[in-house]
Amino acid sequence: MNISALLTSAGINIGLCAILLCLYSILRKQPGNATVYFGRRLAQMHKPNLDSCNLERFVPSASWILKAWESSEAEILSIAGLDAVIFLRLLVFSIRIFSIAAVVCVFAVLPFNYYGQEMVHVVIPSESLDVFTIENVKEESRWLWVHCLALYIITFSACILLYFEYKSIAKMRLAHITQSPPNPSHFTVLVRSVPATSERSFSESVKFFFTNYHASSYLAHQMVYRTGKVQKLLNDVEKFYKSIVSMKTDPWDQKCRPSRIRCGVCGGASNSFEYSNELQDIRNASFSLPESIIREKECPAAFVFFKTRYAALVAAQVLQSPNPMLWVTELAPEPHDVKWSNLCIPFRQLWIRRIATLIAAIVFMLLFLIPVTFVQGLSQLEQLQQTFPFLKHILKKKLMNQLVTGYLPSVILLLFLYSVPPAMMLFSAIEGCTSRSGRKKSACCKVLYFTIWNVFFVNVLSGSVISQLNVISSPKDIPTQLAKAVPRQATFFTTYVLTSGWASLASEIMQPFALFCSFFNRFILRSKDDPNLVPAFPYHTEIPKVLLFGLLGFTCSILAPLILPFLLVYFVLAYIVYRNQILNVYISKYESGGQIWPVVHNTTVFSLVLTQVIALGVFSIKKSPIASGFTIPLLILTLLFNEYCRQRFHPIFKSISAQDLIEMDREDELQGRMEGIHLQLMSAYTQFPADSREICLGQGPGSEDGSSTQSTESRGLLPFVLGGLSITRIQRVFTWLSMIITLQERGALR
Amino acid sequence: MNISALLTSAGINIGLCAILLCLYSILRKQPGNATVYFGRRLAQMHKPNLDSCNLERFVPSASWILKAWESSEAEILSIAGLDAVIFLRLLVFSIRIFSIAAVVCVFAVLPFNYYGQEMVHVVIPSESLDVFTIENVKEESRWLWVHCLALYIITFSACILLYFEYKSIAKMRLAHITQSPPNPSHFTVLVRSVPATSERSFSESVKFFFTNYHASSYLAHQMVYRTGKVQKLLNDVEKFYKSIVSMKTDPWDQKCRPSRIRCGVCGGASNSFEYSNELQDIRNASFSLPESIIREKECPAAFVFFKTRYAALVAAQVLQSPNPMLWVTELAPEPHDVKWSNLCIPFRQLWIRRIATLIAAIVFMLLFLIPVTFVQGLSQLEQLQQTFPFLKHILKKKLMNQLVTGYLPSVILLLFLYSVPPAMMLFSAIEGCTSRSGRKKSACCKVLYFTIWNVFFVNVLSGSVISQLNVISSPKDIPTQLAKAVPRQATFFTTYVLTSGWASLASEIMQPFALFCSFFNRFILRSKDDPNLVPAFPYHTEIPKVLLFGLLGFTCSILAPLILPFLLVYFVLAYIVYRNQILNVYISKYESGGQIWPVVHNTTVFSLVLTQVIALGVFSIKKSPIASGFTIPLLILTLLFNEYCRQRFHPIFKSISAQDLIEMDREDELQGRMEGIHLQLMSAYTQFPADSREICLGQGPGSEDGSSTQSTESRGLLPFVLGGLSITRIQRVFTWLSMIITLQERGALR
Repeated sequence: MNISALLTSAGINIGLCAILLCLYSILRKQPGNATVYFGRRLAQMHKPNLDSCNLERFVPSASWILKAWESSEAEILSIAGLDAVIFLRLLVFSIRIFSIAAVVCVFAVLPFNYYGQEMVHVVIPSESLDVFTIENVKEESRWLWVHCLALYIITFSACILLYFEYKSIAKMRLAHITQSPPNPSHFTVLVRSVPATSERSFSESVKFFFTNYHASSYLAHQMVYRTGKVQKLLNDVEKFYKSIVSMKTDPWDQKCRPSRIRCGVCGGASNSFEYSNELQDIRNASFSLPESIIREKECPAAFVFFKTRYAALVAAQVLQSPNPMLWVTELAPEPHDVKWSNLCIPFRQLWIRRIATLIAAIVFMLLFLIPVTFVQGLSQLEQLQQTFPFLKHILKKKLMNQLVTGYLPSVILLLFLYSVPPAMMLFSAIEGCTSRSGRKKSACCKVLYFTIWNVFFVNVLSGSVISQLNVISSPKDIPTQLAKAVPRQATFFTTYVLTSGWASLASEIMQPFALFCSFFNRFILRSKDDPNLVPAFPYHTEIPKVLLFGLLGFTCSILAPLILPFLLVYFVLAYIVYRNQILNVYISKYESGGQIWPVVHNTTVFSLVLTQVIALGVFSIKKSPIASGFTIPLLILTLLFNEYCRQRFHPIFKSISAQDLIEMDREDELQGRMEGIHLQLMSAYTQFPADSREICLGQGPGSEDGSSTQSTESRGLLPFVLGGLSITRIQRVFTWLSMIITLQERGALR
Repeated sequence: MNISALLTSAGINIGLCAILLCLYSILRKQPGNATVYFGRRLAQMHKPNLDSCNLERFVPSASWILKAWESSEAEILSIAGLDAVIFLRLLVFSIRIFSIAAVVCVFAVLPFNYYGQEMVHVVIPSESLDVFTIENVKEESRWLWVHCLALYIITFSACILLYFEYKSIAKMRLAHITQSPPNPSHFTVLVRSVPATSERSFSESVKFFFTNYHASSYLAHQMVYRTGKVQKLLNDVEKFYKSIVSMKTDPWDQKCRPSRIRCGVCGGASNSFEYSNELQDIRNASFSLPESIIREKECPAAFVFFKTRYAALVAAQVLQSPNPMLWVTELAPEPHDVKWSNLCIPFRQLWIRRIATLIAAIVFMLLFLIPVTFVQGLSQLEQLQQTFPFLKHILKKKLMNQLVTGYLPSVILLLFLYSVPPAMMLFSAIEGCTSRSGRKKSACCKVLYFTIWNVFFVNVLSGSVISQLNVISSPKDIPTQLAKAVPRQATFFTTYVLTSGWASLASEIMQPFALFCSFFNRFILRSKDDPNLVPAFPYHTEIPKVLLFGLLGFTCSILAPLILPFLLVYFVLAYIVYRNQILNVYISKYESGGQIWPVVHNTTVFSLVLTQVIALGVFSIKKSPIASGFTIPLLILTLLFNEYCRQRFHPIFKSISAQDLIEMDREDELQGRMEGIHLQLMSAYTQFPADSREICLGQGPGSEDGSSTQSTESRGLLPFVLGGLSITRIQRVFTWLSMIITLQERGALR
């Protein structure tokens, strides 16, 4: 590939992106698409300011970019929570470090690569891309110290930026904890593995234990119940009933206002709604089951409420019983973050579940390409004809032939890739996380490892599974192997950024699948979109993607600096697009409080170390002992930096300090808020109306404002059915994968 | 080597051991050797029942064996503490598991090894030892399932025994904590990294912080002071003065009664002794330094005392400050376990010290043999003559020639090996442990890794450093490499058990170095032994040794079962010898509360897994897919078992449960003991008379009973000088190494 081809490709991609962004700027102005492009606003009762009849609706504009750009960090924090801010900080960090890297590498390293060998240079546009990589530098070149210096500059800049990011995010996390309104989760401890006795029920045991050992601070507790089949059925009926009961209000609301379904138990407003009485009856019926049955259905798990935050923290952190497998405590997740279905998993199973899912995820990661290549092999014409003789006639036609051989492998890879994020989410769910955010974080890590392995390493080592495993089993050769392979793959990675990176952003902002569903709903089924089905931000697919591009940027920076400008464009575009999406489309159903940053930090340090290891390999191939010699201390310093950050910041992300909690408790007590908080606590965690709670989105447990008029118009079944199939998940998977398909086309993942 | 040679060697060793044990039984009856063989008893004021004038003194007897055997576990627990009991439990465990292994392997596996190939067998005594190893089984033999079955039996027995040991030791640890007299360390938290402010001194900061955030439970605190040069000098003078001041009492006491030197500060009895006033004056002089100087000398570390145990635990476990590098808390070590010199190390240095010492220890471990072989190479005659021409004449004599070539390499190896335990202790001290027991545990782990690597792996892989590193860098080949090498080395390991193992026990009980020092002291210097220089039990050398023999036993069990009977004899002998030594010789200066057991457990599981990996390699070399197939699930089950134990028991060894501590607090409060405990707390941790405290051996902080008459006879300087050189340490090293020298003679460590 030469420069002009690259520029052509870049031009086409830029054009395509521009067209899609224009299209988006038009589509978003159509009131009919409001549920697709303004899901969060609708769910949170903020009407987007769209005029129904206006010519401007059909003129593309860049106003959305301005809006996305203008909103401040504080605004995003209040709207979308800390996790969203941290995701944007990751993008800002990437823009900063790759600006520095681009300046250093394009102006200092690139010329040395280009003039690295005595050769006749043709005009630049028809120059091969390889001429711009480090492969063009001759052996024992004296100029390799420039590369080493660039590596030093990049590493030091990255470490300094990372340090300040970590510091400011730790500060933000503390501010988030201390300055947000009283959070029931701070007062609550999740107790598991309550021991069974013949004399006492679980509930009595919990009461006895905590009144005995934590008498001064224990407030109350609430058992977790096993969801019986009857209860499940009741919940399903309730869900179904809700989905067919809708509201009728003004024309705009008819289209966009969410059908805010409230339930009595989670603290609904005084307006009763038509079905609530019936439901209440059913629920009461199930609640008035004989004591013995309820007792049977109790899980050995409970939420225990304490009088102060500090007491809850102490109860959560101290080993309670001389048998560490009993009375296991941890700080409870936030009420709408609780994964109720996992609370009844016996604690004794957890460790084995964790090991099993870890092994399953690793096997999935390593063996992912085996079934793919096998099924792709099946799609070869002759094999197909042998397996399905009736296809012979069809396949004889040339068009069909081309279609099958040209696209079938891509489609198969795509279908397999579809399965990755859901599979990882499934693994994380089986693992037994007690919170949704925990599950998402766990899935995020798994997808991250999967992505880095299957996009970066498999490409670089260009191997079948057996040669992959060979590389693992001879760790000594890894630097040289990588050093040989990465510069060669640099061209591919550059085009990968151009196509997959940019295309993924266009697809992200266009939301093609949601748009299609919305169209299908409105024009085929003639029903209305359910604005309640607003997706949560898919951190578990987006963070790995951004981190992967970061990894590509670091590893290619001094080897093939041409990738950096394209990457920089990607990050800037991503910053605007994700800001827009966070402001308009996604809602934050639950909040992990920035728990993801340590993962981001560690991955970035891993990328840096990998870059240095590859540089080490390259320098030793190029026989430059000085450059190699200088890289080793850099490697050690980077690792020490990481260890320092782990010591300095990581505990903040694992626990809250006594000092902060005690101050908060004092503040609340001084202001006489404690009583109110204690009252609120009692109703904060409600297990059975969990599904309806999920629908009362974006509301803290105490905020009961907002309209409560309910319409009764019948609604289509599609949202319900798709809701059952988890529409948001499917949609995410589609956008996540739309860019990975290019891999196959470029023959990379083969 | 054939069977008769092995039996001859065993016979010689048995004879040697028997002679040495007889000699011991005579030597121990001589009153002059009481300081060597009854150090603990003397230090704790228990006169050994020795008659000065009796013919029986010169007749060997086995009464000591009976005495050692008879004493119950409770007795040992009360005399020597939990750590000693746990060490003996390790021996009991070893005896049990190797009894099972010996029965299974000798009666089931050995015949199949012996008749594994169709060959003409000579008479058993002249049969080669290789015939009894698995190497003699032919490929694809159907009888390999017997080996696999034996492996299953051994693994399952070991796991069951390990589980019950872990369970009972966890129970013992709990009992030790809950039933022992009130321990100041339970009420005390060690706070480090107290932030510096211009307004407040460290002490004021500590007071402000804890009265602010832990007002209800904070009792008092005590700063740690930097030991200035003047203070050090004063301490040295005090030490010297004490060593030359001695006591004069009855004839027996003159010989054996320890010169129990007491100081006023650590709560001495009412009898004043001659030098105490002078010392007190000096000390008062140093304590009455101007306030400003003391303030400068304050370290940012303090012991904070709490009103209850639970409050201390909470303060120790909860993250105190939003900056995790400030106000770092941990439960304090016991008063005589505190390593004062390490408390002033800035907390920020600790992580880097830990990393540095870890790397240093690994480098030391891997590169240990390089200087040894280099210096041994120098000892070749020609090189010696070239380097030191004046030696030419001497070396021409045949005797000298033989001596130099025959013994010099051994001596050099020995001298290098001498350095291992002190080096590891040094590394552990630099690491910054706050307690002596922590330092010893850390050194124990380091010596363990060193021993296993340099005795087992280096022998098996029989390699120079480069080939060692090659093995590490291709982990895939390890099973096959080990499978080929271990059976071949089995003969060596058998003789290693015979010579090094048995000889080490004989040397342990004879205490040749201490005996020599005592003789030298008494007959050359004409001074008396200082009974205060009683060694503490050297866990850091003995536990690795026993675990190494366990590792040899497991790995050789099904491959070369002939090792097992000899190993069993070793363990039984070790059980008696160490019981005797613990009862008579060593004192327990400090107590880790059984913290070493998790290390023992993990090492044993490692040995099992290594055995299975080697078996896997052997089965695949012997082309027995069924046996290999059955070994893999065993491997997985063993790892799962270890993980289960980690979940089930390990937290107990890291922390104390709230339930236990609260019960203890209540008990003390009910019985009105709290006031007394609080008073005692204030004087429990005294920094400056630390050296004199060390001399008040074997005494809890509250126990002030025992005789306090002091003699004033002048004593020799040797004990003092040797004490300065840490006599106990040197002595331990000698005994530790006396058995490793055989390695060199057998050409193993080359």
